[in-house]
Amino acid sequence: MSTAAIEQIYRHYTVREYRSDPVSTELIERIIGAGQRASTSSNLQTYSVVAVTNAEVRARLAELCGDQKQILQAPVFLAWCADLSRLDRICRMRGYEQVTDYVESFLVAAVDAALAMQNAALAAESLGLGMCYIGAIRNQPAKVIDLLGLPRLVFPVSGMTLGWPAAKPFIRPRLPMSAVLHWESYDLEGEVEALAEYDQAMVDTGIYEGRQVPTPGRDDRMEEYGWQEHSARRVSNPMRTGLRQVLCRQGFDLE
Amino acid sequence: MSTAAIEQIYRHYTVREYRSDPVSTELIERIIGAGQRASTSSNLQTYSVVAVTNAEVRARLAELCGDQKQILQAPVFLAWCADLSRLDRICRMRGYEQVTDYVESFLVAAVDAALAMQNAALAAESLGLGMCYIGAIRNQPAKVIDLLGLPRLVFPVSGMTLGWPAAKPFIRPRLPMSAVLHWESYDLEGEVEALAEYDQAMVDTGIYEGRQVPTPGRDDRMEEYGWQEHSARRVSNPMRTGLRQVLCRQGFDLE
Repeated sequence: MSTAAIEQIYRHYTVREYRSDPVSTELIERIIGAGQRASTSSNLQTYSVVAVTNAEVRARLAELCGDQKQILQAPVFLAWCADLSRLDRICRMRGYEQVTDYVESFLVAAVDAALAMQNAALAAESLGLGMCYIGAIRNQPAKVIDLLGLPRLVFPVSGMTLGWPAAKPFIRPRLPMSAVLHWESYDLEGEVEALAEYDQAMVDTGIYEGRQVPTPGRDDRMEEYGWQEHSARRVSNPMRTGLRQVLCRQGFDLE
Repeated sequence: MSTAAIEQIYRHYTVREYRSDPVSTELIERIIGAGQRASTSSNLQTYSVVAVTNAEVRARLAELCGDQKQILQAPVFLAWCADLSRLDRICRMRGYEQVTDYVESFLVAAVDAALAMQNAALAAESLGLGMCYIGAIRNQPAKVIDLLGLPRLVFPVSGMTLGWPAAKPFIRPRLPMSAVLHWESYDLEGEVEALAEYDQAMVDTGIYEGRQVPTPGRDDRMEEYGWQEHSARRVSNPMRTGLRQVLCRQGFDLE
């Protein structure tokens, strides 16, 4: 059972190389408009997006986001932000005081931004464009905040490059559904096997280039470096340890 | 310029009344599969979903989520969770120690869950189903965690009811794009006018039933109760103030 939307969803791949052709304002607005149609908690719409096309600003953003040259190459960079500042301005105008002290406030705004950006991503792809989320916008968030002039109660959740794809599609396998979907309650049955199967599927794509690692608990034996080893290494390194400080400075106290 | 995916996105409306007909396992898996195709930070896939069909468990969930009877009515409840426990099990198995102390870890996992759930929502709608996000899953998160057996490093970000719609579509207007989209840098120009325009659009839907409120700063003058007044009241009340404590207990220290 399929639909045009599901087929579009299955065609998603991340684009990190772009042609230099611009993306029209009309197209960008079409994409943001689709983002706006996503659900938003209590219809509060607690997000904003800053669209950057200026090449100098993109060059600076590229530096701040781990020197990713795709940010220079892609004609458009979208900074998707959690935004409670709009409601703060409304509250002040109308004699109310917004409560923003708790984790809940930031979480609602970050999820609002995420739902909108995923709709926008799909809309962009359906128009023939390519995109890539840029989590590295959180590498140096205080500098991004300065560069884009983000006021208090605005925080960049994710960047997004947008443009016309210049590389071949590569659709990554995902975890077997059984590793992600639990029926009735959280359930670990079959997880080890599902993860082993996924290791093999990822090795088969060739992205790990046939690397070998010692088998856990068996130093005398080698096995293929797969998704589990790759991901375990990744998450055992502290990353972006300064977010809380910047979030607090922006008014998100995360109490 | 439009596409089938964009048209599908524009047909979204929130469904809170459902027919009693079940949703097949095949359809649910089709929907979760579409969710899995969303981008995920570093391909870490740090989310899980618990699908609840059992009527007694849904009745308990309804109680825990603000007594929303749609949770009893809809044949399926999906609990979308930030999930770093899978990677924690992998790390332990392979001799690594996962870093989960920082806001970054929870944010990545919450955004991963949000991107997947938005793809799933759209896929469901394209199949003729209706859905509603249930933020109230965070009303009593510790009890939801117990009920669904969520281990350490798993946290319910949002619920979702899923089923066959039994009410007429109501597509809510959204903010004028100028209030949400900023070109090159964050810009307040025209915001007051855009918000006034939106107030009128929301009043015109009739959902505020012609209520009046005093005009701010002019106690002698009344104006229509609109989205700004409604939203200001909403965000000036503290909500879900206990998340941090439960997140810490689950291993998300938010440092």
